[in-house]
Amino acid sequence: MKSKYEMFEIKRSDLAGRIGILHTNHGKVETPAYVPVIHPVRQSIPAKKIKEMGFDLVITNAYITLKQYGDDAIKRGIHDIIDYDGTIMTDSGGYQVLEYGDIDTDYKKMAEFEKGIATDIAIPLDRPTGFGLAKKKAIDYVNHTLRISKETLEARDNNVQIWIGPIQGSEYSDLVKDSTRNLVKYGFQMLALGSPVEFMESYEYELLAKMIITAKKEMPDSIPLHLFGAGHPLTIPLAVALGCDTFDSASYMLYAKHDRYITEDGTAHLDEISYFSCTCEVCSRLKPREILALPKEEKIDKLALHNLYSIKSEVDRVKEAIHEGRLWEYVLRKVRAHPKLFETMPLFISNTQFLAKGTPRFKENAIFLFSKEDQFRPEVARFHDTVRKFKTNKKNLVIIPDGGMRPFYLSPEYNRLKKRFARILDDTQFCQYNPYLGIIPLELSDVYPAAHYVMSGYQHNKEEFTEFLTTFNTFLKQNRFKTIHAADDDFLKHYTKAAKKKIKFFNFRGKDNLKSKKSTKS
Amino acid sequence: MKSKYEMFEIKRSDLAGRIGILHTNHGKVETPAYVPVIHPVRQSIPAKKIKEMGFDLVITNAYITLKQYGDDAIKRGIHDIIDYDGTIMTDSGGYQVLEYGDIDTDYKKMAEFEKGIATDIAIPLDRPTGFGLAKKKAIDYVNHTLRISKETLEARDNNVQIWIGPIQGSEYSDLVKDSTRNLVKYGFQMLALGSPVEFMESYEYELLAKMIITAKKEMPDSIPLHLFGAGHPLTIPLAVALGCDTFDSASYMLYAKHDRYITEDGTAHLDEISYFSCTCEVCSRLKPREILALPKEEKIDKLALHNLYSIKSEVDRVKEAIHEGRLWEYVLRKVRAHPKLFETMPLFISNTQFLAKGTPRFKENAIFLFSKEDQFRPEVARFHDTVRKFKTNKKNLVIIPDGGMRPFYLSPEYNRLKKRFARILDDTQFCQYNPYLGIIPLELSDVYPAAHYVMSGYQHNKEEFTEFLTTFNTFLKQNRFKTIHAADDDFLKHYTKAAKKKIKFFNFRGKDNLKSKKSTKS
Repeated sequence: MKSKYEMFEIKRSDLAGRIGILHTNHGKVETPAYVPVIHPVRQSIPAKKIKEMGFDLVITNAYITLKQYGDDAIKRGIHDIIDYDGTIMTDSGGYQVLEYGDIDTDYKKMAEFEKGIATDIAIPLDRPTGFGLAKKKAIDYVNHTLRISKETLEARDNNVQIWIGPIQGSEYSDLVKDSTRNLVKYGFQMLALGSPVEFMESYEYELLAKMIITAKKEMPDSIPLHLFGAGHPLTIPLAVALGCDTFDSASYMLYAKHDRYITEDGTAHLDEISYFSCTCEVCSRLKPREILALPKEEKIDKLALHNLYSIKSEVDRVKEAIHEGRLWEYVLRKVRAHPKLFETMPLFISNTQFLAKGTPRFKENAIFLFSKEDQFRPEVARFHDTVRKFKTNKKNLVIIPDGGMRPFYLSPEYNRLKKRFARILDDTQFCQYNPYLGIIPLELSDVYPAAHYVMSGYQHNKEEFTEFLTTFNTFLKQNRFKTIHAADDDFLKHYTKAAKKKIKFFNFRGKDNLKSKKSTKS
Repeated sequence: MKSKYEMFEIKRSDLAGRIGILHTNHGKVETPAYVPVIHPVRQSIPAKKIKEMGFDLVITNAYITLKQYGDDAIKRGIHDIIDYDGTIMTDSGGYQVLEYGDIDTDYKKMAEFEKGIATDIAIPLDRPTGFGLAKKKAIDYVNHTLRISKETLEARDNNVQIWIGPIQGSEYSDLVKDSTRNLVKYGFQMLALGSPVEFMESYEYELLAKMIITAKKEMPDSIPLHLFGAGHPLTIPLAVALGCDTFDSASYMLYAKHDRYITEDGTAHLDEISYFSCTCEVCSRLKPREILALPKEEKIDKLALHNLYSIKSEVDRVKEAIHEGRLWEYVLRKVRAHPKLFETMPLFISNTQFLAKGTPRFKENAIFLFSKEDQFRPEVARFHDTVRKFKTNKKNLVIIPDGGMRPFYLSPEYNRLKKRFARILDDTQFCQYNPYLGIIPLELSDVYPAAHYVMSGYQHNKEEFTEFLTTFNTFLKQNRFKTIHAADDDFLKHYTKAAKKKIKFFNFRGKDNLKSKKSTKS
């Protein structure tokens, strides 16, 4: 038996998102991965075709399989039943059992069945809390789920079958926390976060994001997290950036049945669409009205196929964003697809530490700086932390706006400053600044990302840069400068107002800057 | 001969962008359209294949055709030479003539040649100003281009061949203005804006945008505008939103020759890419490293084919955005693909009137409101204008935050207010407000978009809503309210501070709001 440390390897990460490999009885699955729902009885797009499209992990319903095939399912095995030779996850039908009030099926029987059909990733028969459940009832459901999960795990076979610990609690973050902590303690190798479907139906993206963050903060990085019922291009970047590794959904098919076409920014009725921008095998051959005119079954299959491509495309965009170290940029742009999704933005700003853990200390690519939110980007926040600890005994500070060659110490600007301040060179601390990164001391000007950023020349509102203010104040407090020579620049003037130091402003821009000089005292 | 009003039909518009039909000698071309550059001699992706992909208009080089085929070209015709039965535009080789210092080819000869090869859309032999040319020289070039364009147009055959007036002037907006105005006066049916290639090589998107706006403001809507050498997914939404109808580029092939892969957000070297999110016929079959391993010619063709799909995809996204009335949302998200592109945002904020002209007064879809920029969205600005003219003789103002059912007059909130203010009902003006739309008087609460918006619950910075302030002040100045009953709400309090009226704040939210009451006087 492989140890749990081998079951999931992390290859690359950005924010709390990661590219990983999940090792299962039926091969490797690269994550983040969308997990298409396969119906064990009525599945019109063959699982084989879905595998060819690049989905190496699917989920099917063990409860429906049991009801349909009974013990025969154990003889055949789930891979034969759905005709799929990749990795299969089985949901145990917690929802169905609740819905049909089925008392014949208990968690022990279901666990035995999931072992019997040789699923690769099994889920105990949990009791989903859904959304809007009274707290008392939610506590009951969470406790029940914890108890049966523990028992199920203890009774597992000693093989590579992976058992998932189902986190319940929904909007009650104390329950989610408790639930997660206990499942980790029991020794689950993989966890899953329950039932956000209803959240999303009411566009409660913020609630979904908070729930993911709550759970993630209670689990070690080595454990992969599955998200139940959330596989839309709108939620995928959010879920991945916050640390979800796999996420299933039947929406590709459910939406298709109602003529609904999934795009990277939402879902539209086919009759509202005039132009397909998708280039998949369906959309490059047919126009919207041509699909609408197809016989019903064919229309549904074509739409479902496109929907799968659309979701896959989104996963690949997110993976490429992690690969390029641009997940922050990608997610902060994506949230502008819908005003309700935009409400998750404050969570990215306020969870810097959580998001910084997976963000590499050095990246190949320069980071892009657009607007105030970017001062809280993990790479930027980290740089502020470094500068806030910076100490020098020098008595003069020279500070100019950034620009020109980087790092600062190799720039012609620095050479000019050296000449200008030649008389006090040894006792002078040279710094650049920009609104995002704050103060950039010469000595730290090659620390990532001080030499690796592209900043928009968009007119910044001075009031918005609270991190700049904190760093600047800390920097001045921590170092005892007698004199500050500051470039005569509006942004800097705004912040030096409160500095309570002797400030000499000088004209730094322009060719004759060494001659023209203007002094002010704050 | 068709009249110039029939040559170009506008079907739908949003901002300054439009979906149109260009009628030519070789059929209809739906715009906005990307115009792939076809090399008249060395073209490895057959023009036929390009037509099959959905490109109904291509551009080729008349100068190279003349040099290669001489008079034989006139016998064959350009459609035979490049083997393409759609609409062909021919560039006259102004760049080549300048570069090679070819004095044998003059504009008269070139015009005769373009007539002879029966191109559908012809361009006179202009003298491109490029970027960074001294003003004096730029004036010369512009005047030369104007003179030969006028002569060329006057000597045209009386047939459906379309002649394009080439606007030169580049970064000198007075020259661009002058150039455009004259070409319109001469009677050109279509104009083209010169040489932004160099702008884009140095990421001068803002300059490009300004140049387009300058030209567009001098031309009637009925004239389509072509943009030379700008067909990247990064620039397409910008160009279309500002009113460009067609745009050519050879980048799909030039980039392919250097292993460069065009994405919706930029261009990447193939060896930097790990995951293709594109689902085109190339990317759904091959992985990045598999394309890299192909024989050189095949590799270039595959990449060029993908690049064409990528550009087409972008055009279709923009067309769909126009169709759905979401071009503002689309462009304001797109500018976040690169910090230099983001610098064009202020142009969208400051050109409301220009952008409003093409923006429908009513849309099927609700508009999305995310952040401060959206107060300048044409639909929103238009609503402010309407409210700023609103007059009532009523003496009391009741104002509450928006929310609940729309329009306001059908909402339960309004019913509650009617009961609460029953005694002064006939003399009371009821209003809702939100930070974007400003004041929403009951009577205007069904005017688009007052009942058609989705607003993010993102915490708004009160200081950012300058349009709100103007409208609120105008509203209070124009109407002589004796008393203001305002919902006890931070945003409103901020703005009522300066109102200099008797303000009674009341608790509107919450069930017991009819009882609990708090009064303040400003």
